[in-house]
Amino acid sequence: MYGTDGCLVKCSSFPCATPKNDSKDTSTTINLDHGDPTMYESYWRKMGNKCDITFNGDDSLSYFANGKSLCWFLESKLEKQIKRLHNVVGNAIVDDHYTIVGTGSSQLMQAALYALSPIDQLEPISVVSATPFYSEYPEMIDFVRSGLHKWAGDARTYEKNGVYIEFITSPNNPDGIIREPVVNGDQGKLIYDLAYYWPQYTAITSSANHDVMLFTISKCTGHAGSRIGWALVKDKEVARKMTKFMEISTIGVSKEAQLRAAKILELISDGCLDPNMENFFEYSQSLMTDRWKRLRQVVMANDLFVLQNYPLQYCLFTKDSFESHPAFAWLICKGGEEEDCEKLLKEHNIQTRCGRRFGSDSRSVRISMLSRDEDFNIFLQRLMAIQGPTNGN
Amino acid sequence: MYGTDGCLVKCSSFPCATPKNDSKDTSTTINLDHGDPTMYESYWRKMGNKCDITFNGDDSLSYFANGKSLCWFLESKLEKQIKRLHNVVGNAIVDDHYTIVGTGSSQLMQAALYALSPIDQLEPISVVSATPFYSEYPEMIDFVRSGLHKWAGDARTYEKNGVYIEFITSPNNPDGIIREPVVNGDQGKLIYDLAYYWPQYTAITSSANHDVMLFTISKCTGHAGSRIGWALVKDKEVARKMTKFMEISTIGVSKEAQLRAAKILELISDGCLDPNMENFFEYSQSLMTDRWKRLRQVVMANDLFVLQNYPLQYCLFTKDSFESHPAFAWLICKGGEEEDCEKLLKEHNIQTRCGRRFGSDSRSVRISMLSRDEDFNIFLQRLMAIQGPTNGN
Repeated sequence: MYGTDGCLVKCSSFPCATPKNDSKDTSTTINLDHGDPTMYESYWRKMGNKCDITFNGDDSLSYFANGKSLCWFLESKLEKQIKRLHNVVGNAIVDDHYTIVGTGSSQLMQAALYALSPIDQLEPISVVSATPFYSEYPEMIDFVRSGLHKWAGDARTYEKNGVYIEFITSPNNPDGIIREPVVNGDQGKLIYDLAYYWPQYTAITSSANHDVMLFTISKCTGHAGSRIGWALVKDKEVARKMTKFMEISTIGVSKEAQLRAAKILELISDGCLDPNMENFFEYSQSLMTDRWKRLRQVVMANDLFVLQNYPLQYCLFTKDSFESHPAFAWLICKGGEEEDCEKLLKEHNIQTRCGRRFGSDSRSVRISMLSRDEDFNIFLQRLMAIQGPTNGN
Repeated sequence: MYGTDGCLVKCSSFPCATPKNDSKDTSTTINLDHGDPTMYESYWRKMGNKCDITFNGDDSLSYFANGKSLCWFLESKLEKQIKRLHNVVGNAIVDDHYTIVGTGSSQLMQAALYALSPIDQLEPISVVSATPFYSEYPEMIDFVRSGLHKWAGDARTYEKNGVYIEFITSPNNPDGIIREPVVNGDQGKLIYDLAYYWPQYTAITSSANHDVMLFTISKCTGHAGSRIGWALVKDKEVARKMTKFMEISTIGVSKEAQLRAAKILELISDGCLDPNMENFFEYSQSLMTDRWKRLRQVVMANDLFVLQNYPLQYCLFTKDSFESHPAFAWLICKGGEEEDCEKLLKEHNIQTRCGRRFGSDSRSVRISMLSRDEDFNIFLQRLMAIQGPTNGN
């Protein structure tokens, strides 16, 4: 077995985000099930107090925000910085879109479903997404047994006539592939989840310009704890209904989280424009490139797994060509159909998410690439230690 | 007409929360439709930087909180301060309850509905509340046409057998009355909305000890923009399901809002225990007492309206007896059934919420008592200027 000296794991030229502690108890399971973006802490620590924000006791008491947006609870500072960042990065058209803020993009997905579901139909509208789809779609769409919409599974096998909603996650969660709509229907309402359409993950090949586009600060900057997402929406009535959804379900979105998000996005845009500052996307792209390189080496070395490959693409933002290095690795066991990759990795104290959750099979797993350095290093060590033949029972 | 010199309006001995600007354009409508708690800004301004909180760029990136709570996204600092405040005020038993944090109590209402709705029934469970009920209940319960629960109207006329859910809002929104369950059934699941069970609004007569109790910082301290609510829940399975609801709908609650709320609640508890600090509840109770006294004088003087009366009750927290001074005034036109109180007040540039929205009739309106001083003063001036006979068309 190649690399038993651990060099692949430990000898990266890339600086560690967190102090290494490879003496971590070997019985502790490394949790790479969730896409918890703690990898980004290192960048924000380096920024010191550059994006500190202080709230006084008398700040932001009102339900209402200070802006004049159709979305009455959206802070104008946040709206401004969202638009600025998209213009700086060039990943989405903002000018002819309404901005809606949400408590993470999860809430905005539900708001979009609410806004796009016809109210004059007896049957709930079918909602589909191509396999492997984001594992939370089925539950999120059906958990309150809505009469407005229902999960209808894999978009590739959907053939009913009439209206439907298709989620297009691009780059895709779990497998990082760039996606287009797949249902061959003329009455589709499309929701683009572009959470991962940022330069650290994939080349920015064009400025997205769809009717409904969803983004989240969790995967852009790593501030998942803030629960800030936003939608860019072309149609005024859809934007109004999405705002209504947010009003009924949570009477808006935390002002503290919005104002802090504005500050964070501002610093990122500044860093992209000022050569004297450390560019966030360059920093995080380097981190991701390094992690993917090391993961691919380990996977190639032990000959038990396959990783998704990505084409070389020219990025309009970095002015450079590179392969995607997604936020999740979509790892497939080489064994037969009876293979259970999640179980195999769990036996080696690596918690991942089984492919079945994504409408795929148990040979595949989704693995977060966004953990702290320490956990990522232990993950590679443990993956490297797995020996064939695998236990498929 | 009594008080045409405006003395009732202007001669309060109570210090103004905001600088007076009675020259406000008379054509501008004063919006007292929402219960936007900006009245509290004055207290928080006085506190200066005592509850400032600063967030660094690398704070709170993770989805997960640092606590060990069943509610995995609940910050332990907030849980501690919620429990401490309830113990200091004596308005709710916390020790044998799980704490669940929500994006405002609106989200927790839906989480409680989700958790209490049976999953093995063909028909959605009926949800009721006694008229006049919180105006948002019908829409909140039915907006996504859930198959789990449906709005079934006034609890007083509900007579079906079997399981049901009853919302008990106490003190009640809109009319400030202390409430008990009213449905005479043995299979009721009760949700107590105790948003207004704080000493500035009503006497604390006992420590509430129900299965599901909801609170919100919006009405307790005035920080509505933070969107922080909490539930105290006895049953572990219900608490788990409510947490699951929050996980699916928003993957938790903003960490910034939680940590700031913890700081705010801490200062309030400190102020209740330290005689050298200004007690928040004493301050806000004085404000409310003063506003209610002036409103009652105006209403008595013009003889067109009636206000709800409240009994004198002994408060275990203030060690004093007082009448309630609710967050909303429930004003009733003395005219006949054809009277439209909202319309009448709107003609005098006072925006209120019509009684019909609360399952009552158009003779009554709900008026926020929590506006800034300036708006409250203008409201009283305009109310005083209304002359009978009223226009009921």
